Parts: sequence; structure tokens; C-alpha cells
Amino acid sequence: MSRSRSFTDEEQATWAPLAAVMELLPARIDQQLARDDALTHFDYLVMAVLTRAPGHTVRMSELASATNATLPRLSHVVTRLEKRGYARRERAADDARAIDVVLTPDGRRKAISATPAHVENVRDAVLDALDADQRAQLREIAYAILDRLDPEGRFAVTRTDPFGRG
Amino acid sequence: MSRSRSFTDEEQATWAPLAAVMELLPARIDQQLARDDALTHFDYLVMAVLTRAPGHTVRMSELASATNATLPRLSHVVTRLEKRGYARRERAADDARAIDVVLTPDGRRKAISATPAHVENVRDAVLDALDADQRAQLREIAYAILDRLDPEGRFAVTRTDPFGRG
Repeated sequence: MSRSRSFTDEEQATWAPLAAVMELLPARIDQQLARDDALTHFDYLVMAVLTRAPGHTVRMSELASATNATLPRLSHVVTRLEKRGYARRERAADDARAIDVVLTPDGRRKAISATPAHVENVRDAVLDALDADQRAQLREIAYAILDRLDPEGRFAVTRTDPFGRG
Repeated sequence: MSRSRSFTDEEQATWAPLAAVMELLPARIDQQLARDDALTHFDYLVMAVLTRAPGHTVRMSELASATNATLPRLSHVVTRLEKRGYARRERAADDARAIDVVLTPDGRRKAISATPAHVENVRDAVLDALDADQRAQLREIAYAILDRLDPEGRFAVTRTDPFGRG
């Protein structure tokens, strides 16, 4: 089938609002965290994953997967969190070549205190705008797109969906 | 109603894949355009809007609205496009205080030659991953989120939806 070399009207009508969300939503999320807690969304995500982990410790490679990040990008952010006293690197007990990232007590307090305002912001910008059917549709749609963005399943989110994909 | 101060499991299951798309999709779009055409997605968007406009000319304030950008950000990008010979600023004929942005013939050729690979990339990453029902759902969902992100309708996309909202 020969396809149009430019967007059809229907494609444009679908892509334009998604591209606008992609442009405006990260700014909304980052601005609240920067203003209230001097954190980026990525900083917060790293700390939230560590907060939920046993011993508040996650292997660097697993942490990259859990935060949709490359190792160099994660390493840069962990260094910044170390300087602020929120995290530290440790040589992994079971693998001399591997590095664990550990959330410090200060980091844990920071993540906990930053959470309510961030959660309210995500609810206000996204979750509360959608009914239950739309939230289920959004999960399906986002995972269908993630299959294209991460076909090899490098990132944890593309391998785990507690509401549907298993 | 008292609400949880952290994400419920259902909220987390909805937000996590959207946040991952928001993280990975812009990189996918920018990387293709940077590699093939030395353009950012925002450069392309500005040139695409100008290509479709009568006389390839758009008032600066309208162009900002059409590209989900603030005026300072747009102004910076227009300066870059001017240096590459793709656009120029002109004083508006009907308002001495207003500035028009005009796409040059070189800019038009660039936008046209960059389009097919960009369109294929968006199809591969997003549009072809979804069936017609999901594309309709995505439009509804994206507009519901945009109502929250842009409640005052500053951006053109939140005021125009040829497939549904009028």
C-alpha cells in the first residue's frame, strides 16, 4: 500500500494534541517540583523508586531501567543527589563490578515530603481529567506506544503492567 | 473526600506508562530529525505551520500559539532559523508593533524534504501502534489533559479539534 508522504487529516488530528501534551506536560511536572522541592521530575522518580525498594537500595542498572534512563544520564543524576546528601553509591555485596544506589535517611525524608504536592499536581493535570474508562484506555495506548519506543524491553515499565499485561 | 497522599496502585499504573512515553517519545522524534535534517522537533513544527499558512507568513503571537510555545522561546528559534536562511522577520503590514514570520523558499524546501521521514517516524512510533478506536480515544484523552494544561486556551491545539470538539 502506498501511503501519503505527509500526515493525513486524521493522523494530524491525532498527533497534534499528543505532541502538545508531550510539550506541555513535562514542563508542568518539572515546574511544580522545582518550585516546591528544588527537584526535577527525574530526581523525584529516582528517589521514589529507591523509597519503595527493599533496604532503599537498587542496583544501578536496575535503577536505570526503572526510570527509563540511560546509565550515563542516571549516573549524572545520582552524583547530583549524592552532593545533596540524598543518595550514595555502594559497591554491590554480591558483584564486585556492580554498583548499588542507596537512598539516605535525608533522601527518604525528602522523597516523602515531596510526594503529596507532586501527586496532587499529577492528579490535577492528568488523572482527574479522565474517567475510569479513559484511564484504562490510556494504559493500553501508552503500552502500545512503549512497545514501539522500547521494543527490546530495556525499561521496567514496558515489562510490568499490574493492570492488564502481566 | 480525603484522598491518599501518595499514588494509589491504579493511579501509579496509569501515570507510570504515560510518564515513560513523555520521557522516551520526544527523544525518538528529536533524534530522527536531528540525524536526518539537523532540525529539532520544535524547528520542524514552526516550519510546518508556516508551510501551511497563506503566503507562508504567520504573526509571531499566532505562531507561538500554534506551536505551544512562549514568545521568548519562539523568538529564539526564529532567530536560529533566520541564521540558516529558512525564515525571516517582517514588520506586519497592518500593525506597526506586530512582527510576522515568513518562511523563505529555502525554508519551504527544507520543510518539504524533511517531512516524509518525520511522518514515517511518527507513524512507526505512535500512529501505527494504535487502531482507529484507540486513535479516537487518544484524541479525547489528550484534549482532556490539554484542558488542564492550558485552561485559558493560549495554544491553538486546545481550541481546534477537527475530529470532534469544533
